[in-house]
Amino acid sequence: MDDDRPKSSTPADATVPKAVVSRLSLYLRELQHLVHGGHETTSSTQLGTVLGFTDAQVRKDLAYFGQFGYPGIGYRCEELISAIKQILGTDRSWPVALIGLGNLGRALLRYRGFGHQGFCVAAAFDVDASIVGQRIEEIPVYHLDQLAEIITKLKIRLAIIAVPATEAQRVATLLAKAGIDGILNFAPVTITLPDSVKRVEVDLAIELEQLSFAVVNRAERT
Amino acid sequence: MDDDRPKSSTPADATVPKAVVSRLSLYLRELQHLVHGGHETTSSTQLGTVLGFTDAQVRKDLAYFGQFGYPGIGYRCEELISAIKQILGTDRSWPVALIGLGNLGRALLRYRGFGHQGFCVAAAFDVDASIVGQRIEEIPVYHLDQLAEIITKLKIRLAIIAVPATEAQRVATLLAKAGIDGILNFAPVTITLPDSVKRVEVDLAIELEQLSFAVVNRAERT
Repeated sequence: MDDDRPKSSTPADATVPKAVVSRLSLYLRELQHLVHGGHETTSSTQLGTVLGFTDAQVRKDLAYFGQFGYPGIGYRCEELISAIKQILGTDRSWPVALIGLGNLGRALLRYRGFGHQGFCVAAAFDVDASIVGQRIEEIPVYHLDQLAEIITKLKIRLAIIAVPATEAQRVATLLAKAGIDGILNFAPVTITLPDSVKRVEVDLAIELEQLSFAVVNRAERT
Repeated sequence: MDDDRPKSSTPADATVPKAVVSRLSLYLRELQHLVHGGHETTSSTQLGTVLGFTDAQVRKDLAYFGQFGYPGIGYRCEELISAIKQILGTDRSWPVALIGLGNLGRALLRYRGFGHQGFCVAAAFDVDASIVGQRIEEIPVYHLDQLAEIITKLKIRLAIIAVPATEAQRVATLLAKAGIDGILNFAPVTITLPDSVKRVEVDLAIELEQLSFAVVNRAERT
């Protein structure tokens, strides 16, 4: 049946450039910001201007996933937020396992940005006897030996690795064996996993490099 | 004078899509990995395959900055590493100021990935009297009141904000007044700054969203 609601269809991820998927997150943030500010509609020009993209880029990115705009209106913010969340898979809540409770792990436990987007650390794991069995930031801390058991019990599909580089591969292998679907790796080392496990490596130095590029190029232009 | 060395020229950053600059960092990491493994040369196909891009994409990205390949040889790893570092501005060492020494700030102090790419935290700042005047991870901790003085003295141009969201704008304004050129903001809030200060917002939830996208799309394909 044909109606005038936006159509969304998620193509196989292999056909969507990774950069487009990253930009979806940026559009989502800006739309959430607009709704927070009382806006009901927006346009590709407005979204693009705030984020530094052309309006054509915004339209092309969204066109990978469907037809979201209305002639003479633009995008309805709430509607586009729902559509993007569905595409990103964040229209549901994801329980996440966090492995490693050093400074980084503790900072991540406290990181409010995850919860805002539907990610909730449901269980933390460490090998330090002084914290295993405790709660930190209200999250229960389990021993690494309980990884498979707890992941199965809590139906956890995503995990964050925040252990030292030397331990990262061992933990990743344990997670893969425990049946995890996706791993976000903060350890500054590349981990090897079966293709069935999706992974995203976080390299914080990349952000600094983007900053030095911007600073150097500005300086050399003026 | 014409010779066969690779030519590199950095265009004004406005003409290079941000996504291309991000990919330069990925190429750099992979080249460093190859050199570490004893490789002297590589190809756009090899670089692309490892990183999940087409060889055409790799060549197009690098073409923004110059001509780096040799017919019949491909890229000389060490040479391309030098060229990319020069483009990114990491052919020099950058002293960095870190503001905020909670769990995240301490994790960042310890983060080895920064040092590997030429970034060195030269001074840390906090308002907690129990740590001001101390050294943490061998880095001196100053009071926030000393920000402008120390930044000038140590010729610091880049800063990392790792304070709570409620303090981020105040700290950003202080940094701008102190003459900083670029800010990497980990606080989960958007900061407003004069155009003269470059800034990169780190939103760690984006990485989790990219992961959930990959997991959802894999699951729905099979």
